[in-house]
Amino acid sequence: MPKVKNLQDFLIEELKDIYSAEKQITKALPKMIKAATSDELKEAFQNHLDETTEQINRLEKISEIVGKNLTGKKCKAMEGLVGEGREIIEEEMDSDVRDVALIAAGQKVEHYEIASYGCARTYARLLGHSEVEELLQETLDEEGNANKLLTEISESLNLVAMDESEK
Amino acid sequence: MPKVKNLQDFLIEELKDIYSAEKQITKALPKMIKAATSDELKEAFQNHLDETTEQINRLEKISEIVGKNLTGKKCKAMEGLVGEGREIIEEEMDSDVRDVALIAAGQKVEHYEIASYGCARTYARLLGHSEVEELLQETLDEEGNANKLLTEISESLNLVAMDESEK
Repeated sequence: MPKVKNLQDFLIEELKDIYSAEKQITKALPKMIKAATSDELKEAFQNHLDETTEQINRLEKISEIVGKNLTGKKCKAMEGLVGEGREIIEEEMDSDVRDVALIAAGQKVEHYEIASYGCARTYARLLGHSEVEELLQETLDEEGNANKLLTEISESLNLVAMDESEK
Repeated sequence: MPKVKNLQDFLIEELKDIYSAEKQITKALPKMIKAATSDELKEAFQNHLDETTEQINRLEKISEIVGKNLTGKKCKAMEGLVGEGREIIEEEMDSDVRDVALIAAGQKVEHYEIASYGCARTYARLLGHSEVEELLQETLDEEGNANKLLTEISESLNLVAMDESEK
């Protein structure tokens, strides 16, 4: 990390972190779609993959606005989160429970992104970068909605998995 | 991971993950307290360290209730999150900005915990483990409050950091 002297520098560091996180998510989601059993869940992950592509486009637009390259950083937290998702895919697990587990992994990813975009959006606002703030807010709203959708899907799936565990 | 056949098995796996996450947080927080400049932030981290100790006690109570040992798993996501916090502490950074950065790291940790406890609480409810559900809900409420407090502190600190960046 180069010397972070002010909030502007830290915003750029956070944006690099988010850019790396989104890139990692685009690689992980196709595996999660393949591993999911429920059609509803597969569709939710597919929609989120499409959204993620658009979110990366927004970050590239922000990169142009602020005149800084956002590549070259690896988001360690997302590495861990994606690793947990991989474990769920690789382990022996009944399919209903795997869907519940994939949702949990997805919700942890969404929560990480909500925290990251929330902070970056606030820094952009404080620094008066209104266009950057708007772009970050758009993604933040999408992440919040993606998380809510996963909660809704889990409410039906959890019940199925519960029945399975009572067999 | 042993074979996860049902929701009960997955709840135990998630609790092991949370137990490891909390243990990692108790090691990271003293370093964050030391690195923070703002007294308010130092105090917030100290209070959360005390809360975390109590949250670990709750998990140990849950371990007795469900009759399962929760040790022996390493939460990879928390490893990454704590690693990001460590980077902030080690890098050259002006103290006001470091406080902002420490809050961002803290909020990412809180969000991870909110997602994890939220899922585990739901599984406990679905499985009819009402005592476990209550213990998890207590911690979930604390994590939510800790996150809100960090937002409040950041609102004053961010402004200071913004002023610094305009120098």
